[in-house]
Amino acid sequence: MAGLLITLEGGEGAGKSTVLEALKAVLAEGGREVVCTREPGGTPEGEAIRELLLRPGQHLVPEAELLLMFAARAQLVRQVIRPALARGAAVLADRFTDASFAYQGGGRGLDTGHIAELERWAAGLRPDLTFLLDVGVAQGLARARSRGGEPDRIESEREEFFERVRAAYLARARAEPARFRVIDASQPAATVRDAAVAALREWLGTRP
Amino acid sequence: MAGLLITLEGGEGAGKSTVLEALKAVLAEGGREVVCTREPGGTPEGEAIRELLLRPGQHLVPEAELLLMFAARAQLVRQVIRPALARGAAVLADRFTDASFAYQGGGRGLDTGHIAELERWAAGLRPDLTFLLDVGVAQGLARARSRGGEPDRIESEREEFFERVRAAYLARARAEPARFRVIDASQPAATVRDAAVAALREWLGTRP
Ligand SMILES: Nc1ncnc2c1ncn2[C@@H]1O[C@H](COP(=O)(O)OP(=O)(O)OP(=O)(O)O)[C@@H](O)[C@H]1O
Ligand SMILES: Nc1ncnc2c1ncn2[C@@H]1O[C@H](COP(=O)(O)OP(=O)(O)OP(=O)(O)O)[C@@H](O)[C@H]1O
Ligand SMILES: [Mg+2]
Ligand SMILES: [Mg+2]
Repeated sequence: MAGLLITLEGGEGAGKSTVLEALKAVLAEGGREVVCTREPGGTPEGEAIRELLLRPGQHLVPEAELLLMFAARAQLVRQVIRPALARGAAVLADRFTDASFAYQGGGRGLDTGHIAELERWAAGLRPDLTFLLDVGVAQGLARARSRGGEPDRIESEREEFFERVRAAYLARARAEPARFRVIDASQPAATVRDAAVAALREWLGTRP
Repeated sequence: MAGLLITLEGGEGAGKSTVLEALKAVLAEGGREVVCTREPGGTPEGEAIRELLLRPGQHLVPEAELLLMFAARAQLVRQVIRPALARGAAVLADRFTDASFAYQGGGRGLDTGHIAELERWAAGLRPDLTFLLDVGVAQGLARARSRGGEPDRIESEREEFFERVRAAYLARARAEPARFRVIDASQPAATVRDAAVAALREWLGTRP
């Protein structure tokens, strides 16, 4: 059985972590191994990088932010994702390279050519299927904040930043319609979950 | 007065930090501001990355190591080196991009094309002058170890690793003879220091 790499993308509070469990259950139905990852992080070294990236009060330049994201991802790909794919597992990733195009490209304004270079050699993998949970910025932020706790360094950005992130995600989905499934994540959680599950079942049905 | 970027390179225990003070004094003679940096590190964010890079027992994949090095460097260039050069200062850097070509290229075997890409957009600066302090691996390691303390993650590599680092440094110096001054660092510290100072004075004398 060939491995599958399925990614969940979207802005703050879109509901990625909420949908993940339902997709995981679908993928596991045939007895297939499912490995869930989250970014940045997912390895001991990556979690240390995550801590550094999200620490409030840090003044990272955009280039450093991008390189740290890909450092954590290079580690995750080689220590977790590639070995899992080689075993035939389905990998369900809470964020992957599209997040760098959206946050460091759209949000920070870094050149997407450099990001594509890093995608090729530092990650070296493209998702088979990507869910984009799309929700208005204010609605997503309100949900994320309702979880409570101190906002991290990226959550503390201004709304314009998240508008650019959302626009960049939508542009990527338009450019690669075969890979992306865009889900209207402004709906109630159960509706969003059912839509994602239906899209996953449909996609799995088209696979050999 | 135009800024100057002068870098000190070489393997473990070559004597970079020892020579730095003497070069600093020469550069400061005309009343010029001199800014000294060290890598990885040199900014609060960079020092946090340094800690992560050198922590013993960490299992960083080579790609992550390279990206972390350049993340710290991107931060250092934008927060310290570029502002100093813009003020007309001389920047004296204890390691810079050549170290990535030597350690992550030569030592870890990463493709130098990727390193050159990162040099262009993440660092975006080339040194005006580079001192390569060249010493046999065993002699350098013996000196570094004589400082005492637990060896860090990179100092704990095997001698073959450092042989590849040394060969990569020497190849870079051969390829760019106008920029490099190779100093025989197997000599006593005072001799090495005097040779570096003389080479710096001679180079400064040729500048407009
Ligand atoms: N469709 C929804 N409607 C209302 N609330 C939701 C919906 N989806 C998720 N939530 C709630 O919003 C909050 C954020 O959801 P979740 O953590 O799944 O988002 P996320 O996309 O993973 O966010 P982050 O980017 O911060 O990881 C949670 O408290 C969750 O219960
Ligand atoms: N030419 C020399 N002969 C003998 N000992 C030396 C010489 N140069 C430096 N040393 C001593 O060797 C040790 C390492 O020198 P130094 O710290 O300057 O090297 P370095 O190149 O900065 O090393 P690192 O790569 O670990 O930063 C120090 O204890 C220093 O006093
Ligand atoms: Mg989440
Ligand atoms: Mg030193």
